[in-house]
Amino acid sequence: MIDYKLHIPGPVDVSKGAYESLTKPVMGHRSPDFVDLYQKCQTLLQSLFMTDDPVFLSTSSAWGVMEGAVRNLSEKKVLCCMCGAFSDKWLDVSKRCGKPADALSVEWGSHIDPTELDSKLATGEYDLVTLVHNETSCGMMNPLEDIMNVLSRYPEVLSVIDTVSSFSVVSIPKDKWGIDVILTGSQKALALPPGLALFSVSERAFERAKTIEGRGYYFDFIEFLKNHEKGMTPSTPVIPLIHGLHYTLEKIFEEGVEHRHQRHAQLNQLVHDWVSAKGFELLPEKKFASKSLTCVKNNLDIDVAGFVKTLREEKKLSIDGGYGKIKGKTFRISNMGNESSESINYLLEQMDDILPRFQ
Amino acid sequence: MIDYKLHIPGPVDVSKGAYESLTKPVMGHRSPDFVDLYQKCQTLLQSLFMTDDPVFLSTSSAWGVMEGAVRNLSEKKVLCCMCGAFSDKWLDVSKRCGKPADALSVEWGSHIDPTELDSKLATGEYDLVTLVHNETSCGMMNPLEDIMNVLSRYPEVLSVIDTVSSFSVVSIPKDKWGIDVILTGSQKALALPPGLALFSVSERAFERAKTIEGRGYYFDFIEFLKNHEKGMTPSTPVIPLIHGLHYTLEKIFEEGVEHRHQRHAQLNQLVHDWVSAKGFELLPEKKFASKSLTCVKNNLDIDVAGFVKTLREEKKLSIDGGYGKIKGKTFRISNMGNESSESINYLLEQMDDILPRFQ
Repeated sequence: MIDYKLHIPGPVDVSKGAYESLTKPVMGHRSPDFVDLYQKCQTLLQSLFMTDDPVFLSTSSAWGVMEGAVRNLSEKKVLCCMCGAFSDKWLDVSKRCGKPADALSVEWGSHIDPTELDSKLATGEYDLVTLVHNETSCGMMNPLEDIMNVLSRYPEVLSVIDTVSSFSVVSIPKDKWGIDVILTGSQKALALPPGLALFSVSERAFERAKTIEGRGYYFDFIEFLKNHEKGMTPSTPVIPLIHGLHYTLEKIFEEGVEHRHQRHAQLNQLVHDWVSAKGFELLPEKKFASKSLTCVKNNLDIDVAGFVKTLREEKKLSIDGGYGKIKGKTFRISNMGNESSESINYLLEQMDDILPRFQ
Repeated sequence: MIDYKLHIPGPVDVSKGAYESLTKPVMGHRSPDFVDLYQKCQTLLQSLFMTDDPVFLSTSSAWGVMEGAVRNLSEKKVLCCMCGAFSDKWLDVSKRCGKPADALSVEWGSHIDPTELDSKLATGEYDLVTLVHNETSCGMMNPLEDIMNVLSRYPEVLSVIDTVSSFSVVSIPKDKWGIDVILTGSQKALALPPGLALFSVSERAFERAKTIEGRGYYFDFIEFLKNHEKGMTPSTPVIPLIHGLHYTLEKIFEEGVEHRHQRHAQLNQLVHDWVSAKGFELLPEKKFASKSLTCVKNNLDIDVAGFVKTLREEKKLSIDGGYGKIKGKTFRISNMGNESSESINYLLEQMDDILPRFQ
């Protein structure tokens, strides 16, 4: 029985309006009515992605596109920047696609150091770098602009940047920074239900893809491009979430993108202040702390599982008790989506109310 | 502006109740609340698929699973049974996955002849056969039981059967007929919006998959199995459509599966009667005509595009004007999903009303 509000780092709380938009009528995906919906989203998406390249709609989770990017873009060797659960997994996924791949690995909570990346790329071994901008498992945001500066010195190396939990939270100027593939999902800061991934591909990445064998069909970037030119998707798309996307994009531009970024920064600061006030610490260095969620180090050794359970059952608020190997050693609070200072302060007050029981 | 009712062969008309089910709250897909939803669907799905094997939920269109099956199950050579737009494409998709593949090809509208399949398999060249049970582009239903009888004599050859537009329309006893992979999509006879594929995999297909390199992650059958054992999906699932699936499964079992099959057969007969009464013909032989949709041969040389457009604009009913190379030479009428004799008779009356204008 879902009688609680989601403050986990995705899926996050979905607004009534967004839910209602899912019930708009479906249509044939080769019909002019679908093309109209696609085109209306496209204009707004290119603006939000800060790109002149097409923005594609993939009926999948982000992992589908993350795998697809590796299949489309590498034939030499992939360098996977690893700093948490999701970025770590990308190495395994690359190998499972039959691609040679190496790790540039740091401890969970640490960031990818642009200088170390530089040394790795200087070997000339790689043709693709994978990076998770905002490691959701650790609440850590990599220094993307500095990383892209390094990559700009290696024109033969393409970049795939997962912005699943940072997209629309902070400014990520795709074209200006020279990102080749940027991808995100519907259920994080866009605050839609899961089931739709969004991604944008650079011209030179299309050129590379054309030369790569074994791309398949479902995630083939060239198929996406060919269909995009007709205002369509290669395969039958998840129309309810595309209706939802259109609704959400209109809301984002009503609020204003700049204002949205500021709001997320402010709400994130409220959570950080609570963390300090209680004597907790952040898992990552403050400088690299995510703006979309907070990963709290359990330095006070509270009963995280009990705290999370009681908050959900008594207060009807759901935060996360830590991911994978740092479960219980951390807990995570999302400020993504439609949150306000009222809703975040309410959450923090309710947490305050029960915290003493678990210390 | 979607002010018309869908009678195209998918997506089909979605009921108010099914739309409303999409707005049920999302939850974390690693939470007990998700496991509960998954398990509730699973019991009903295994009954509907007539299988003891797990039934998986893939956040993709059916093409994702169709590609996945080839990547998971073939290392020797795929034999693609080709009899229409979708089955033809499977050959191309197989090759794009880097798999050697041959065609067993018949004219659009014709069926796959079990004897010809037998001859092909007798060469010993193949380890996988792909077949579209009900070719949506041609309204033709292959003689699946006879085809499975042939396949039963080649235990080293696995079968992938696309039942996208026949699942829940006719009885397809997966285990009894020895189907290795059966797959379908949400937007055809299940009458949900698109975005979710369902598939079930046999024990020996899992065994084969374990030996195949390059399966990747997103459509890896072994990942689906591992997660299934926990009541979960490998990647973040399209939760609104899983809520919708649960709603729909309950409705199907309320009606009764047998009754559902009979209803579809009766509605299909109403359309066939109309076809004969007007002097049209079916594209396929009557014996192999689909029970879920009718592909009408335009032997009277009507203006199909004008007929379809006027029906949609004046009568607010959308049928299909033919697919691919038989566009205009055929038109298609779906009786899938929640249709009744009232709704089908209404459609036929409205078609009658305008047809003389296009003859």
